[in-house]
Amino acid sequence: MALFSKDIRTMDDLFVHQLRDIYYAEKQIVKALPKMIDKASDSDLKSGLRRHFDETKIHVTRLEQVFEEMDAQAKAVNCPAIDGIIKEADEVMGDVEDKDVLDAAIIAAAQAVEHYETARYGTLIAWAKELGRDDCATILDRTLDEEKAADRQLTQIAEARVNMTAAA
Amino acid sequence: MALFSKDIRTMDDLFVHQLRDIYYAEKQIVKALPKMIDKASDSDLKSGLRRHFDETKIHVTRLEQVFEEMDAQAKAVNCPAIDGIIKEADEVMGDVEDKDVLDAAIIAAAQAVEHYETARYGTLIAWAKELGRDDCATILDRTLDEEKAADRQLTQIAEARVNMTAAA
Repeated sequence: MALFSKDIRTMDDLFVHQLRDIYYAEKQIVKALPKMIDKASDSDLKSGLRRHFDETKIHVTRLEQVFEEMDAQAKAVNCPAIDGIIKEADEVMGDVEDKDVLDAAIIAAAQAVEHYETARYGTLIAWAKELGRDDCATILDRTLDEEKAADRQLTQIAEARVNMTAAA
Repeated sequence: MALFSKDIRTMDDLFVHQLRDIYYAEKQIVKALPKMIDKASDSDLKSGLRRHFDETKIHVTRLEQVFEEMDAQAKAVNCPAIDGIIKEADEVMGDVEDKDVLDAAIIAAAQAVEHYETARYGTLIAWAKELGRDDCATILDRTLDEEKAADRQLTQIAEARVNMTAAA
């Protein structure tokens, strides 16, 4: 976020800056998900991540709509937070051999991503409303709902994994 | 998380690895919070962060209890995720001059931290139960409750900030 943060003077600036941060994050998630899908073994986990991969590409498009509504250029600013979350996921995924343990690690990594996004979209929606931009809040709200649903689904998959392991 | 991740073979290993990750994260948060407290203007925000600073030191101690229960060495492994979240907070805080906009940015940063921790503790509690370690789950659950409460309180402070700004 460094490059442009000197330009943050108003809530409008902060809102656009945060939009650019999550825009970068969503694009990095689009890049990171195929590897997670590839490494996952559980079929529900694989299909859940695949569905979320498709959703994430839509989230990128929705952010471009919000930039347009705000009359701001759709550009990404570096987001060390998502870089760190993805780096951690990569490191763990690269080293776990047992398929079941690897699935557990992938679910944990994906949930860290979802929680990061939930925090950022929650903030963006609050700021959009503060700025009287309910049009932007409505668009962002659709994405937030999908992030929360993805997180709930990951919890269900994790629970099913545990039950299956216990029954094995 | 790189250094020790080659040793992850079992769910026990993964659990201890994740404990070490959040142990590092909590310690970094203890280091980062005083700067956020110092930069905050809103008195409720300042006192809320101060209270959470005290809680965070207790979270570190609780993790040490869990390490003890698990008969594992209490050591921290690098956590690029929390480093990224804190780096982003530092960058934005360093450049925003307007007090009200700065408070909004601090709340957003603190909520990103809380959401990261919520994801990690949620995972750790699920894994502790999976491993039949309800003793550890109970300790971690206390911290999770406090992280969630801190997040809710930040939302309330954010809403109050908006109402005050609107009334000004």
